[in-house]
Amino acid sequence: MRDILDAVARGDLSPAEAEASLAGYATTDAGRFDAAREHRRGIPEAVLADGKTPDEVASMADAALETTGRVIVTRADGAHVAAVTDGLPAEASVDHDERARTLVVEAPGFDAPSIDATVAVVTAGTSDAAAAGEAAVLSRAVGATIDRVDDVGVAHLGRIVDHLDTLRAADVAVVAAGREGALPTVVAGLVDTPVIGLPVSTGYGHGGEGDSALASMLQSCTVLSTVNIDDGFTAGAQAGLIARAVASARDD
Amino acid sequence: MRDILDAVARGDLSPAEAEASLAGYATTDAGRFDAAREHRRGIPEAVLADGKTPDEVASMADAALETTGRVIVTRADGAHVAAVTDGLPAEASVDHDERARTLVVEAPGFDAPSIDATVAVVTAGTSDAAAAGEAAVLSRAVGATIDRVDDVGVAHLGRIVDHLDTLRAADVAVVAAGREGALPTVVAGLVDTPVIGLPVSTGYGHGGEGDSALASMLQSCTVLSTVNIDDGFTAGAQAGLIARAVASARDD
Amino acid sequence: MRDILDAVARGDLSPAEAEASLAGYATTDAGRFDAAREHRRGIPEAVLADGKTPDEVASMADAALETTGRVIVTRADGAHVAAVTDGLPAEASVDHDERARTLVVEAPGFDAPSIDATVAVVTAGTSDAAAAGEAAVLSRAVGATIDRVDDVGVAHLGRIVDHLDTLRAADVAVVAAGREGALPTVVAGLVDTPVIGLPVSTGYGHGGEGDSALASMLQSCTVLSTVNIDDGFTAGAQAGLIARAVASARDD
Amino acid sequence: MRDILDAVARGDLSPAEAEASLAGYATTDAGRFDAAREHRRGIPEAVLADGKTPDEVASMADAALETTGRVIVTRADGAHVAAVTDGLPAEASVDHDERARTLVVEAPGFDAPSIDATVAVVTAGTSDAAAAGEAAVLSRAVGATIDRVDDVGVAHLGRIVDHLDTLRAADVAVVAAGREGALPTVVAGLVDTPVIGLPVSTGYGHGGEGDSALASMLQSCTVLSTVNIDDGFTAGAQAGLIARAVASARDD
Amino acid sequence: MRDILDAVARGDLSPAEAEASLAGYATTDAGRFDAAREHRRGIPEAVLADGKTPDEVASMADAALETTGRVIVTRADGAHVAAVTDGLPAEASVDHDERARTLVVEAPGFDAPSIDATVAVVTAGTSDAAAAGEAAVLSRAVGATIDRVDDVGVAHLGRIVDHLDTLRAADVAVVAAGREGALPTVVAGLVDTPVIGLPVSTGYGHGGEGDSALASMLQSCTVLSTVNIDDGFTAGAQAGLIARAVASARDD
Amino acid sequence: MRDILDAVARGDLSPAEAEASLAGYATTDAGRFDAAREHRRGIPEAVLADGKTPDEVASMADAALETTGRVIVTRADGAHVAAVTDGLPAEASVDHDERARTLVVEAPGFDAPSIDATVAVVTAGTSDAAAAGEAAVLSRAVGATIDRVDDVGVAHLGRIVDHLDTLRAADVAVVAAGREGALPTVVAGLVDTPVIGLPVSTGYGHGGEGDSALASMLQSCTVLSTVNIDDGFTAGAQAGLIARAVASARDD
Amino acid sequence: MRDILDAVARGDLSPAEAEASLAGYATTDAGRFDAAREHRRGIPEAVLADGKTPDEVASMADAALETTGRVIVTRADGAHVAAVTDGLPAEASVDHDERARTLVVEAPGFDAPSIDATVAVVTAGTSDAAAAGEAAVLSRAVGATIDRVDDVGVAHLGRIVDHLDTLRAADVAVVAAGREGALPTVVAGLVDTPVIGLPVSTGYGHGGEGDSALASMLQSCTVLSTVNIDDGFTAGAQAGLIARAVASARDD
Amino acid sequence: MRDILDAVARGDLSPAEAEASLAGYATTDAGRFDAAREHRRGIPEAVLADGKTPDEVASMADAALETTGRVIVTRADGAHVAAVTDGLPAEASVDHDERARTLVVEAPGFDAPSIDATVAVVTAGTSDAAAAGEAAVLSRAVGATIDRVDDVGVAHLGRIVDHLDTLRAADVAVVAAGREGALPTVVAGLVDTPVIGLPVSTGYGHGGEGDSALASMLQSCTVLSTVNIDDGFTAGAQAGLIARAVASARDD
Repeated sequence: MRDILDAVARGDLSPAEAEASLAGYATTDAGRFDAAREHRRGIPEAVLADGKTPDEVASMADAALETTGRVIVTRADGAHVAAVTDGLPAEASVDHDERARTLVVEAPGFDAPSIDATVAVVTAGTSDAAAAGEAAVLSRAVGATIDRVDDVGVAHLGRIVDHLDTLRAADVAVVAAGREGALPTVVAGLVDTPVIGLPVSTGYGHGGEGDSALASMLQSCTVLSTVNIDDGFTAGAQAGLIARAVASARDD
Repeated sequence: MRDILDAVARGDLSPAEAEASLAGYATTDAGRFDAAREHRRGIPEAVLADGKTPDEVASMADAALETTGRVIVTRADGAHVAAVTDGLPAEASVDHDERARTLVVEAPGFDAPSIDATVAVVTAGTSDAAAAGEAAVLSRAVGATIDRVDDVGVAHLGRIVDHLDTLRAADVAVVAAGREGALPTVVAGLVDTPVIGLPVSTGYGHGGEGDSALASMLQSCTVLSTVNIDDGFTAGAQAGLIARAVASARDD
Repeated sequence: MRDILDAVARGDLSPAEAEASLAGYATTDAGRFDAAREHRRGIPEAVLADGKTPDEVASMADAALETTGRVIVTRADGAHVAAVTDGLPAEASVDHDERARTLVVEAPGFDAPSIDATVAVVTAGTSDAAAAGEAAVLSRAVGATIDRVDDVGVAHLGRIVDHLDTLRAADVAVVAAGREGALPTVVAGLVDTPVIGLPVSTGYGHGGEGDSALASMLQSCTVLSTVNIDDGFTAGAQAGLIARAVASARDD
Repeated sequence: MRDILDAVARGDLSPAEAEASLAGYATTDAGRFDAAREHRRGIPEAVLADGKTPDEVASMADAALETTGRVIVTRADGAHVAAVTDGLPAEASVDHDERARTLVVEAPGFDAPSIDATVAVVTAGTSDAAAAGEAAVLSRAVGATIDRVDDVGVAHLGRIVDHLDTLRAADVAVVAAGREGALPTVVAGLVDTPVIGLPVSTGYGHGGEGDSALASMLQSCTVLSTVNIDDGFTAGAQAGLIARAVASARDD
Repeated sequence: MRDILDAVARGDLSPAEAEASLAGYATTDAGRFDAAREHRRGIPEAVLADGKTPDEVASMADAALETTGRVIVTRADGAHVAAVTDGLPAEASVDHDERARTLVVEAPGFDAPSIDATVAVVTAGTSDAAAAGEAAVLSRAVGATIDRVDDVGVAHLGRIVDHLDTLRAADVAVVAAGREGALPTVVAGLVDTPVIGLPVSTGYGHGGEGDSALASMLQSCTVLSTVNIDDGFTAGAQAGLIARAVASARDD
Repeated sequence: MRDILDAVARGDLSPAEAEASLAGYATTDAGRFDAAREHRRGIPEAVLADGKTPDEVASMADAALETTGRVIVTRADGAHVAAVTDGLPAEASVDHDERARTLVVEAPGFDAPSIDATVAVVTAGTSDAAAAGEAAVLSRAVGATIDRVDDVGVAHLGRIVDHLDTLRAADVAVVAAGREGALPTVVAGLVDTPVIGLPVSTGYGHGGEGDSALASMLQSCTVLSTVNIDDGFTAGAQAGLIARAVASARDD
Repeated sequence: MRDILDAVARGDLSPAEAEASLAGYATTDAGRFDAAREHRRGIPEAVLADGKTPDEVASMADAALETTGRVIVTRADGAHVAAVTDGLPAEASVDHDERARTLVVEAPGFDAPSIDATVAVVTAGTSDAAAAGEAAVLSRAVGATIDRVDDVGVAHLGRIVDHLDTLRAADVAVVAAGREGALPTVVAGLVDTPVIGLPVSTGYGHGGEGDSALASMLQSCTVLSTVNIDDGFTAGAQAGLIARAVASARDD
Repeated sequence: MRDILDAVARGDLSPAEAEASLAGYATTDAGRFDAAREHRRGIPEAVLADGKTPDEVASMADAALETTGRVIVTRADGAHVAAVTDGLPAEASVDHDERARTLVVEAPGFDAPSIDATVAVVTAGTSDAAAAGEAAVLSRAVGATIDRVDDVGVAHLGRIVDHLDTLRAADVAVVAAGREGALPTVVAGLVDTPVIGLPVSTGYGHGGEGDSALASMLQSCTVLSTVNIDDGFTAGAQAGLIARAVASARDD
């Protein structure tokens, strides 16, 4: 601890970095940032922009960049993106996916993780793109390779059958679907890859807003686990954790 | 009307038959029996035994037999069956399906309808047999031919593909499924037969009791209409009405 | 297959048409269009505009027009309509129903189907017009004749009784109602036409948004099947499938 | 108050009667009996047997008989009835309706109220008899004349039309229905009598247990007020209050 | 009928008036107006503006004015009011309640009903004013006298006790409350007037939007009937029907 | 720690007592017993018998008696009680409340806590006795004095007003009510004692099983906090914690 | 009473103050203000601005200031704040918390209560700040000292462990959390302070809007009571009542 | 195929084995058994006994044993177990877990899979044992090593902290919890192992039956995926699939 405090005294370490090292989190105006999450959990902490002001998001993003070299912002609108990217050094890497509403910023010199494992991200239709995109960003942040298979809903089974090889080659698959949410069940009946169902908030009145899709995945007569409606963050992070476990074993 | 009353006076017509002809229903101790339903609606009136005493069911069955020559009892347990069949003339035709909990009795000389149309009745698994059986009884009562396709759930798509010819040859299909209820969606994506989804009350906690299956069918990304959970009566009767419409056109 | 590829090489066939012929779907920027649906299912594929950008809808509409000669867009707002109709050849047929939010475009030379069968589309009140209109568009797209019977809610039974002849003459009826949703039950008790209930999202707090109407139709003491709330697309398409089955039989 | 206490001292008044006069309620081993309810509210207090032991019900019934000369027990099973009627004086009037599960006991000399007003009690089908019966008992306890109209569900409109005169002649109507619960709406559209909807706990899975019937009545496009599912007590008591108000005006 | 047609031919009767007399309803561009409702049901038909365009509402209002001499519009916003009142003859009586969102227009010479009965309209707090106001308009339209008792919620019982005389003097009471909805129960425990509970859509998250208030009224341990959330129309009309029944008896 | 291990070696301390001292819990065949709970939390750990076998409950009860000198069993049926009390030393104190389904056993020499604070436990009616009884047992176990006020439901306000002094004298009140659950709101409007609402699982169909009572308490327009339906354990323990805090301050 | 009226006559007392003293409430244009609440209940009456117009809120605030010397407005937007603060005397104390949407105004000379007790207000994350802030304002209004502990959600247990001393030193704790709402359970397992759970309306689709957080708190395996979703008012007021009870005992 | 048929002709292969090889499923009296599931999906097909008769289960078990050498029966009661084990050869291995209601039978000579990976199965309390046991049986059937960590609920965090090493050493963890379901969230915040939440159907009224636990896991602020309530089968099978993926990578 003395080393850390000495480094702060010398100005080699910011107080936020020091706090993150000592306490495992950094205190910002807008809340505490869980800087040790990636070390403890294997997945990077992200900032959920929804429900926070642009200033709050920018303040937490700064703390993340300073202490971990990277920030992932989810559910970001234009104002959030502007607030975070404003004043970044030119060399910072900025990746903004408008559809998935994600923003990934890496500080100059950040050494992004890369692992020897593949996550398939599958959608039933166009409306599933946002949630699936968020999942892809999270899995990629863990270092996995992403294989996208889009628009293969069950109304036309030929579409999914055409992509079985890709699905079977992946180490884990995230399958997004709205409406009746049958795609993860059909996929999981065809492959031995672990499948994570990602229900999407589409649909007509009864069971709409993703309720039917979620219930279908929880009731699936095949084997799959699921996450909450539109929760691409958790789907992608969980797929990332599984991919990391597989890659670790592969490295042994 | 005078003819009817004269026939009652002569003893050629029972008062119940007379009432049924004049008012369209017969009054029993246990309620009014809608004797004119088959004529008006094209489907026979049935007695729902659930929640009625054996005596009440027997009384309504007697009225049905007397006025229409046939009675269909649904959701019948052993005591209901015994009460209805007790004292029937030996020549009466009795068809009791224990699993479907249906009882069909035809008075001697009843001329059962027969139409030139086929209803496919499909199940995803063993647990769907009761609801599907009830549907089959109703479609058959309208006079349709029944083709059963059983245990073809989506966990193994090969099973349903093996029976596509049967499904395509039918004039209308009733597809029963519990759990995530994906089978009607998959079937309706493969054929141009009108499909009626019949959700079945199976499943784990959330969305169990058929709620998930019903929601899936209402949210289907293919085209199908649906009935309430375990409501084999309505599924079979609606399929019967459609089959009758097709058979009528065929007869023209 | 060689013929198709030769035709592409010669420029006689677009790549999208070729893909649609070979794979059964056409790939667009905005998703895969199920070009073989009409052939496989008997009903045309439609583009649900809700939740898609105007560009995405226009891109899918182009694919539909190119591969099938027609496109049906549902839940279209003004921007969707503008994007799709912008740049169409002058001879294209455009039918936009603002209330039903539908847009039907037929390429020059498209041979619209016409079948010898009638679908009655019935509403309880003014608020049911949008859903009923969507249903009518879909049934008409299959080729059926449409008979509209409007504003015949059960608060005044005389209104529905005045139209029984029309209802009895139809081959199948779609009956739309909100609030307590009793109209399909009353209609189905009076005719032997197959009835499809279409619940509409109107009503006060408890059971509002169409929940009460849907539950009523699923609980109907007469025989009818139902579709999801405001799902005029499915109601009209299912009625179309039934009408087509009847018309086929009529043609034999 | 002194008079009351003197009467107790003389043995002319029981302590329970005295407590009821002074405090408005009588204390029993099983709870307080609201002896003043009939005076204050115009409707007699009843003992809901469901969830109480036979001894508790008998103890509360004794208090009611002693302080008001009458007891109404609802939701009574055989053991409750036996416990209450055991040891009653021979001259007591006992009225047990097994189907409605009600028990009305009047002490010798009780002067039952009688008012110049009629309550129509209407059912859609046999399954509505229990709830409707409970309603009839309560309205009768207020003193009203009861007109029963049974088995007139909307699947056959002819049945209800045959009884319009009875309904129009009543001062208020209680209309019981399960399943889709459309009967109160249809009745209220045909008469100018105030209608109280009484939803009954029948029906298939979704919206079953009376939920659909309740929602329908709350959403009715005609005018009616409603009570909770199977709550014949409240329906009958509310009808009784309205009948009493009419009869009072008639007496002026 | 010949007389009516002759009058139309002479121009003494508009076609709408003739249709209303003969068929019981008038056909407008926006739907059928139930002109015979007041005669058949005792309460005037109203136009629910919510979900209709100003033009549709104005068209139905014109039909109502022409055939019945009066129109009641509920859930009207400024545009609806402008559309209806635009072009009215100067002598027409116009009553617009902005809070209750009601508009009552009476044609010159309209003879408004007046009956010898009183409806008490009670609110728990300021937020209940809109629903209660709608109820008051409907009861007044039937001809009843209205007594308002406002802001007497149960958090301070003294407020309601101060107004018991008014409540006891009324022939029927409408009691509006949101949040936990206890006021109708407390009022109904204190008076022998028939009470109609009117739940209002206020409240925090769980049970908010009036769900808790509705459930409380349906579960009341005193006697009351209820209407749907915010459905002041039905509450006021039902109270009007009861008041009319009492006034009729009073007139005998 | 050495002292503890020496005591075990000498047989002065059982292994369970030692484990409880060292780890804060005792391991039994049926699970870990949280022996340190009372020290850490101020309220004794209890054994919820529901869903456990008599043997499991007895095994956990033994561990509790050995390590803390007392055991509280909730939701105990006859078999649970027999299994726990079988083989207890004669001097053990046993308190079994059949209605509340609680069992409290104190080992000989157990020094029951006693604090200078009072908890009022209030019920609306007879059906609330079980939940209220469980609450009383828990508050008493913390050492508080219990004041019961029973059968004071809001249908007759006079009953609650008669007991205001008792309620105002208590340091905290638990108020149990089913059906519409209005009693806690009315009580909390009359006193400045902290009130804990305890909803009870009674009531008719909609909002029955305590749902309406819970929602009412959560929506109360006065100030109160609440616990889950029938959760007398938590209500009584929370009241006990508050009473303990007050008693501690009183002791200062 | 004569003294009060004399004072009004002399102009020493406003009519509103006189009414508040005599009747316990003050009548304003916008409703009755419960001026005696603080005396009767120990907590100040507050004005819920949500759903009221700025004028209504200002009118009720004036009555509060005039009769009690203070007003607390909750759920206030900018227009509400402007309406209330406009025209206040310069010496009035104004405290507006934009995040918590609260406004506290004290008239010159108001003697704010101060008690010897501490309320800990704890949040799991940034999104809980609004509800927690409202709670803090209410507890402070009762006179308690507030200790804030922010951003200590369970995803990183180290954060909460770092603040155990603060939590143990408080007399009562309000713990706010959204999403899965586990924080109050974890806190209540670590301290013997009474804990009030405050669920917050955050979260993904299923169980979002605070439903999951509320259910978790009601199901907690530790001891805590709860309030409705986002109901910081009740949480803070209930904590204030408990703190007052403790402080009173401390003063004895 | 010819080889297979020749083998059947020679009696070397049963017809069921032949059908399983050719069609991928075996037809029994009670349904089709998906014999190829283990090959296609990596997890063995199991027979869900719940809702099937003992004869049906025995018939499907025979088919499983004959075609795959093993059968796993879940939700088996005593009669199911007796029917399956009756008549087994003496050398068959039988493993019946009464609490988990599972039965695993291996035919003589069956070569059970064994993989180099560990699944941790964790419970919050005694009531979670059944679901967790089912999960353990499924993971073990895939060949994984099982590490049980029991009774470590969040009410006492010390218990879970004592077992962190076991959890961190596992390749994947299944964490079962009822009531508020917080344990999976707390575990997933402490380790980088993939966590599968298994909600259990315990709890008081609101959110009971596992609804609250499920919602908590879907809302978790850490990363985990979940399965349906009490669905130990899916939790264990999904953990098995992940363990198999890790073990495969380890073998490379």
